[in-house]
Amino acid sequence: MAADGEEDVETVTGVALLADALRSQGVEWVFGVVGIPVTNIAPALQDAGIGYIGMRNEQAASYAASVVGYLTGRPLLVVAGGCDQDQIGMGAFQEWPQLEDCSRCKYAVRLETLESIPFHVEKAVRSSLYGRPGPSYIEIPGNMTSDAVPITRIEQVLPCPPPPMSLADPAAVQRAVSLLRSAQRPLVIVGKGVAYAFAEHEARSLIVPRRLPFLPTPMGKGVLSDAHPLCVSPARSRALQEADVILLLGARLNWILHFGLPPRFSRDVKIIQVEICPEEFSNNVPAHLMLHGHLKPVLKQLVEEFGQWVMDRDGQWWSRLKEKIHINMNINKELASVTSLPMNFYAAYDIMKDYIPRNAVLVNEGSATMDIGRTVFLSHFPRRRLDAGSFGTMGLGCGYAIAAALIEQRKPDGQRSPVVAIQGDSAFGFSGMELETASRYQLPIVFVVMNNSGIYRGVDSETWTELNEEPELPLSLPPQVCYQEQLTTILARRSWEKEY
Amino acid sequence: MAADGEEDVETVTGVALLADALRSQGVEWVFGVVGIPVTNIAPALQDAGIGYIGMRNEQAASYAASVVGYLTGRPLLVVAGGCDQDQIGMGAFQEWPQLEDCSRCKYAVRLETLESIPFHVEKAVRSSLYGRPGPSYIEIPGNMTSDAVPITRIEQVLPCPPPPMSLADPAAVQRAVSLLRSAQRPLVIVGKGVAYAFAEHEARSLIVPRRLPFLPTPMGKGVLSDAHPLCVSPARSRALQEADVILLLGARLNWILHFGLPPRFSRDVKIIQVEICPEEFSNNVPAHLMLHGHLKPVLKQLVEEFGQWVMDRDGQWWSRLKEKIHINMNINKELASVTSLPMNFYAAYDIMKDYIPRNAVLVNEGSATMDIGRTVFLSHFPRRRLDAGSFGTMGLGCGYAIAAALIEQRKPDGQRSPVVAIQGDSAFGFSGMELETASRYQLPIVFVVMNNSGIYRGVDSETWTELNEEPELPLSLPPQVCYQEQLTTILARRSWEKEY
Amino acid sequence: MAADGEEDVETVTGVALLADALRSQGVEWVFGVVGIPVTNIAPALQDAGIGYIGMRNEQAASYAASVVGYLTGRPLLVVAGGCDQDQIGMGAFQEWPQLEDCSRCKYAVRLETLESIPFHVEKAVRSSLYGRPGPSYIEIPGNMTSDAVPITRIEQVLPCPPPPMSLADPAAVQRAVSLLRSAQRPLVIVGKGVAYAFAEHEARSLIVPRRLPFLPTPMGKGVLSDAHPLCVSPARSRALQEADVILLLGARLNWILHFGLPPRFSRDVKIIQVEICPEEFSNNVPAHLMLHGHLKPVLKQLVEEFGQWVMDRDGQWWSRLKEKIHINMNINKELASVTSLPMNFYAAYDIMKDYIPRNAVLVNEGSATMDIGRTVFLSHFPRRRLDAGSFGTMGLGCGYAIAAALIEQRKPDGQRSPVVAIQGDSAFGFSGMELETASRYQLPIVFVVMNNSGIYRGVDSETWTELNEEPELPLSLPPQVCYQEQLTTILARRSWEKEY
Amino acid sequence: MAADGEEDVETVTGVALLADALRSQGVEWVFGVVGIPVTNIAPALQDAGIGYIGMRNEQAASYAASVVGYLTGRPLLVVAGGCDQDQIGMGAFQEWPQLEDCSRCKYAVRLETLESIPFHVEKAVRSSLYGRPGPSYIEIPGNMTSDAVPITRIEQVLPCPPPPMSLADPAAVQRAVSLLRSAQRPLVIVGKGVAYAFAEHEARSLIVPRRLPFLPTPMGKGVLSDAHPLCVSPARSRALQEADVILLLGARLNWILHFGLPPRFSRDVKIIQVEICPEEFSNNVPAHLMLHGHLKPVLKQLVEEFGQWVMDRDGQWWSRLKEKIHINMNINKELASVTSLPMNFYAAYDIMKDYIPRNAVLVNEGSATMDIGRTVFLSHFPRRRLDAGSFGTMGLGCGYAIAAALIEQRKPDGQRSPVVAIQGDSAFGFSGMELETASRYQLPIVFVVMNNSGIYRGVDSETWTELNEEPELPLSLPPQVCYQEQLTTILARRSWEKEY
Repeated sequence: MAADGEEDVETVTGVALLADALRSQGVEWVFGVVGIPVTNIAPALQDAGIGYIGMRNEQAASYAASVVGYLTGRPLLVVAGGCDQDQIGMGAFQEWPQLEDCSRCKYAVRLETLESIPFHVEKAVRSSLYGRPGPSYIEIPGNMTSDAVPITRIEQVLPCPPPPMSLADPAAVQRAVSLLRSAQRPLVIVGKGVAYAFAEHEARSLIVPRRLPFLPTPMGKGVLSDAHPLCVSPARSRALQEADVILLLGARLNWILHFGLPPRFSRDVKIIQVEICPEEFSNNVPAHLMLHGHLKPVLKQLVEEFGQWVMDRDGQWWSRLKEKIHINMNINKELASVTSLPMNFYAAYDIMKDYIPRNAVLVNEGSATMDIGRTVFLSHFPRRRLDAGSFGTMGLGCGYAIAAALIEQRKPDGQRSPVVAIQGDSAFGFSGMELETASRYQLPIVFVVMNNSGIYRGVDSETWTELNEEPELPLSLPPQVCYQEQLTTILARRSWEKEY
Repeated sequence: MAADGEEDVETVTGVALLADALRSQGVEWVFGVVGIPVTNIAPALQDAGIGYIGMRNEQAASYAASVVGYLTGRPLLVVAGGCDQDQIGMGAFQEWPQLEDCSRCKYAVRLETLESIPFHVEKAVRSSLYGRPGPSYIEIPGNMTSDAVPITRIEQVLPCPPPPMSLADPAAVQRAVSLLRSAQRPLVIVGKGVAYAFAEHEARSLIVPRRLPFLPTPMGKGVLSDAHPLCVSPARSRALQEADVILLLGARLNWILHFGLPPRFSRDVKIIQVEICPEEFSNNVPAHLMLHGHLKPVLKQLVEEFGQWVMDRDGQWWSRLKEKIHINMNINKELASVTSLPMNFYAAYDIMKDYIPRNAVLVNEGSATMDIGRTVFLSHFPRRRLDAGSFGTMGLGCGYAIAAALIEQRKPDGQRSPVVAIQGDSAFGFSGMELETASRYQLPIVFVVMNNSGIYRGVDSETWTELNEEPELPLSLPPQVCYQEQLTTILARRSWEKEY
Repeated sequence: MAADGEEDVETVTGVALLADALRSQGVEWVFGVVGIPVTNIAPALQDAGIGYIGMRNEQAASYAASVVGYLTGRPLLVVAGGCDQDQIGMGAFQEWPQLEDCSRCKYAVRLETLESIPFHVEKAVRSSLYGRPGPSYIEIPGNMTSDAVPITRIEQVLPCPPPPMSLADPAAVQRAVSLLRSAQRPLVIVGKGVAYAFAEHEARSLIVPRRLPFLPTPMGKGVLSDAHPLCVSPARSRALQEADVILLLGARLNWILHFGLPPRFSRDVKIIQVEICPEEFSNNVPAHLMLHGHLKPVLKQLVEEFGQWVMDRDGQWWSRLKEKIHINMNINKELASVTSLPMNFYAAYDIMKDYIPRNAVLVNEGSATMDIGRTVFLSHFPRRRLDAGSFGTMGLGCGYAIAAALIEQRKPDGQRSPVVAIQGDSAFGFSGMELETASRYQLPIVFVVMNNSGIYRGVDSETWTELNEEPELPLSLPPQVCYQEQLTTILARRSWEKEY
Repeated sequence: MAADGEEDVETVTGVALLADALRSQGVEWVFGVVGIPVTNIAPALQDAGIGYIGMRNEQAASYAASVVGYLTGRPLLVVAGGCDQDQIGMGAFQEWPQLEDCSRCKYAVRLETLESIPFHVEKAVRSSLYGRPGPSYIEIPGNMTSDAVPITRIEQVLPCPPPPMSLADPAAVQRAVSLLRSAQRPLVIVGKGVAYAFAEHEARSLIVPRRLPFLPTPMGKGVLSDAHPLCVSPARSRALQEADVILLLGARLNWILHFGLPPRFSRDVKIIQVEICPEEFSNNVPAHLMLHGHLKPVLKQLVEEFGQWVMDRDGQWWSRLKEKIHINMNINKELASVTSLPMNFYAAYDIMKDYIPRNAVLVNEGSATMDIGRTVFLSHFPRRRLDAGSFGTMGLGCGYAIAAALIEQRKPDGQRSPVVAIQGDSAFGFSGMELETASRYQLPIVFVVMNNSGIYRGVDSETWTELNEEPELPLSLPPQVCYQEQLTTILARRSWEKEY
């Protein structure tokens, strides 16, 4: 509010300050559901040149925004309206201790002065980007959205530069290479961190010339192609169980990797851990060597240290791995050739496989839908497979697909990838309404829903009828819940055909 | 896990203990989305005779469960699986500090021993029911769901009885009645608390014989019929602004009641506040008299104290109110008679009104959809209108409708009410997938979606096209997003016809 | 900060607003340690007529302030300075998420506007007083202490009146009296709640004419004199164990009362619980009858309902109790007559007893020091014994004694009680520096420290020397740590002699 | 508790497991106040060879433990007893949501199984050490202290090795050196991080040969001697204000460094920030160059990159600095020569200076006591000055001195430093009782209390008397509060003389 006698001073409102600061800090997309008291945030964002996407539910909005982090290297930033500063404690509209509920964010602030908005936005963005990436939270009191301040009082804040790189201790690098070279059964695990760091070039330079067997984690898939002859995914269990030295690149030994513990890992395995986040070293299994630094430069250090050494593709380790790969791929082929109805996942996926372009962004979630999809759908490029990842959350597919499609849309002609979402029918149900969002923004996404009647496996019509005389089945959907082609996907497909 | 040599001892698992305890404490419905590591909870609940409803999203599940509280007087109880006791800190599947995030619940516990399950369930239920109602939280570590304990170690815990009643100070009651009798412009505000306390009989006994003007809050509607000649809802603004004594029954002077402050209330108004929660007295406006106790007995105290006094329906206050009621009802009538297309809300609602049975449970949410609905759709019975209430949250309609329909379904023949949900198209979008849930459980609900193209008001096709050359409109949906009759609602309608 | 051109407008600073509001809401004492950035709070409080007591440590300050609650019925209010509004997130002096750390308070707020200070102070005080008493928290940003606002913008806020009373359901009262009258072995437990509610008159009117055996909890002592023939404290174990009906007045069945469970209580005991806080009903043991209301009016209800019934002092129950009282008092007498050195507690207390005036406020803390003190030092008046109470915290004695002495000092001549603090040497060590505070404010307190060489019991010199060749003893103090009469206590004693 | 039929199996209790795990993870000192229900922790710690120090107050205990972190590179680990697992929710002795209150720790856990104790202790220690150091929290339920488990079920957990080192990007190092070499007015700020990292050798190798002016932060003092000719502390304001390039080593631009902002810093200053914690880069002022890594290796990188370049000691920048140093040192000399009584700080410190050995650990806290002490008492060795540091807390001196003395005591003969604590009388008052602890453990500490009558400056006797007719003075102590030599310090001094 301009003080008396200052009517001719140029002023700027809180939302304008907020939107400009976000833009200036490199924010390109905001996903949200606007409502009172902050409806004016959305137009302000659009005025500032930020793509504001109106979603149907905040949950899907946050999934969409979070996957932008994985695809572009920018973590989630949560911006919320809060109760007016003069209505605190009065039972204001949707008054709630929001700041406290967001205290686990890397930076969380309720704005108290207009002048400090650019400062807090830069700090929120920087805090989210530097160190282990994580979300930040900014709350703007309702009144501050329309309150204004003379523009002369606003200090410009520079865009926050990318985080500084750090390298591993050269002595540790040397020991790591020496250990890998002398290993009987080495294995490289390529984690989400490699994809997040855009370190695919460096990872390939390390692995490929040396013929090291590698295994991607779910979100690390595509850093090197799953079809690469060095990829041992089909022999995952044996590789993990028998490896004597593991180079763990940006991955955690959490439940996804069976905590790195026997019987899934050898009791004597030596872990060489490459990590940006020091608190992750030695979790569950003591790291034999800790290479602390950013993945890109540390991988470069490893490559330089390694020199010309090459692993023997015909040695005992590779032979055991290739043997197992052969066996397991045959099993999958057999499963895929089963012609019974309803089709099993392998058979269904086998057909779909051929229709999905190599460069597609594949969103794949559900339970069996995701697990089998991880095996069957090969990833050839990094950050093109989006699934539930470490946290295993269901229901994020629609938000992920929308975000991915928007990012592709902004790319120049010829560089865009199509977006395909393959979801279990249960997973789809969490946010299926976002199909409307996809359609409203005319996003070229193909949604495929696997009608397997709920979680794990459903029941057939007869069993369903029979069982319904009993209490309901909590894990099953009825056989007639059968998602079919809808207007939305037709629309989507049309746009797609137009573009690719 | 039974100790060695105890194979012949009868044991009971954690989920069975949990389910039995919930049942024994009167829990009838559980809404959820089960997943690893607690899939076995759902069957255990069903075995114990609890109605387990598999929803499509936990958000809608919690809306459904919470509205059961309003309809049956039992607040929300959140039951969650947590990480195994021996995997804490290891990066277990979906490991998260859940207990901390639920610390605002009235009782929140992570179970640590099987033996104490009945104790904690009773305490959680009792804590939620006694005093100001509020949710409780129980977390069961994954391993405890299948761990078992000899049945002899389990102490039976009695069902928690209904909360004890308390009465207001008789001296305060006396002063309150005296003040109301001598008031020039008295007003009774009937809040959600009256409905929640099932005190409709007592409220009517107080208001009707004395011809007091009354005004319901959104969730207090129907305690007395909106069509009652003493209801001054159509003159709401005048009634609030000019009343000199207000009897506030189980309502808060929060944003919904404009904080009780000028210019919406008279600066000199005297508030007589009847409240169960002492911390609510005098919020924003000092209560002139505080009647602290449960609504049922306190209303009885007021009735007894009042005796035979009756207010003059032809006096100045009633004349001013009736005059305003007349004016405003005419305005609404005119709005309802507008025949332009697209129809305005009043015109649309005017037609729908006649199709909604008097005893229907009406779920009504959205922005204008809800606000105008509050005016047009009269409530004739308590707890039959479900809307966003004090917190103003959008997206709860589908969950609310499902819960209401389940409760009606359990009632004896002839006592069931139909359930109608009238939602804005934006509101519907938050949880529209739950139509499948409604269909799966064959619930007789009629869903009506007001296609007004988004929040507040949308735009017509021409404007939309025009504007889409500009950046997107964050508050609007495209005109072609037009929810029409679907299989689900047809199914639902059919069941309904069958029943009513 | 006054806007330009408003120099002649009378303004008021944040600290002045805060101090005036506190005074106006009845705050009489503030205990604290002031420092940057809020040193100006202390003088502002003094200017407003509030007694500001500069303590040596915030911990003792909070003990002092909290005991004012017990003595005057006003819970703790925490006022803190916080970081300047324009330095949030910058690493400001002592910047910390204070609000979040105080979120368990009944009301917690960081002030954001000067105009709302009176509102928040009233709400903080009211929230702390109404319902179950508990602390509130107010944080004032450093800059707001000296920022000023035109006085015309400040709305006066009325002092918050005492909380409204509520009564128990008359039907429950009737059943309670009927149950007590027909009980074989009734017992009244007089809890802290009775003392806190100043309901001593009502408690006596109930118990004494009916000759009911009563047992005070530690903080309930003195509501009726421990020397009263109806007091069964010396037969505590038997009374609890054999009672068939217990009237529980403002007490919780927590660890102090052995959770109300066998073998310390009879498995079939029927509990009649009188409580202001509904969430306390039936904790650990289901209440047979729940009398929900304030103690004063509910006790009056019980008295009226009881009529003239009197219990038989020569019946079997009283005989068993009197027998046990006789035995235990003889044991204590014997212990007190032991003449060995070092003296045992009973012998030491036996001598001290005669020097402590009947009306003294006795602060008594430590381990054995407190436990045996509870038995030996009889309380004759309510709220005159201050000990660790339900939470069992050690180290609060000095703060308690200081607060008690200040309150006595403000009483008119002839109505003051002397203050005596008897502390274990370990307990004294937590806050012994506050002797200086007591001396600085010339408070007439006698501090007695029991030199028993640490927690439970220490060791003699010989053993100490011997053991010190071994690792140190964590629970013992060396025998030479022997607090003797200091200047401070001499000073104190002198003032005392002057006054009494 | 051993299961039936397993009596002959060797078992181990929870406290023994806890103590062994702590010892095995390198914990050497535990400071505490033991009480129910975990008194058995202290003997178990002593049995395991850990030095358990029984303090008088937990506050001082935590100060003592935390300063061990600064002196030995090991952050605080908080170990607490919690309520029994079968008494949760029952009102157990001191039951409290402790885990939630410690959720800001780097790792916080309530133990749930005995088998996992070694795992959690290692993880707590490792989490506290790796990355930015910070405290961890372990809570052991009361029952688990004495519960036992067969020793065969316990997996050995290896001691956590020191954290891995990381280096800065060589390109950034190169640019940093180039910028420093071309700077007109370079300045090196030596922060607490250098001391914490034990990087004194590297810091000297960088600064001394190149004749760079350096300025230590309060906790960075002594990394290079304050008496070194390159130290510009006496010209602090000018150095900060005029520097055009600042090399910031392990320090934050927080309130202590005036946020790095004008007018205290040049608007155009270029900051080269060397940091281990990436989130600290660019706080308040954008770093011109970010050198992300551990201080030791990054300083080595800088030294190597710098080569033989030397700054001109007779150039303009050094001349301006030396001029200001000369002026300010003369002012201090004059202040020190004032002979008025009571003595000013400078005069008092001037005398004391000569009695404090060069290698003494100097604990110095208070307000003026600390601020002037920072100027007058020169530090010649790293980690030998302990003051309030970044958080500015008062009252930590006694705990700090005790911890420092214990650490010195464990050093071999001839390598021990004496410990001197110089505290303001107000600061001393927070924890003065810990003198008894110092005495009990016969620690050779000299405590000096500056009797300046409270915070900032007190008043003389006459003013005090006069003012006491008025309300009390919140910031002053009475002139007669005059700490004099006590038995304890005599004892201490005697031990000291014996040792040095």
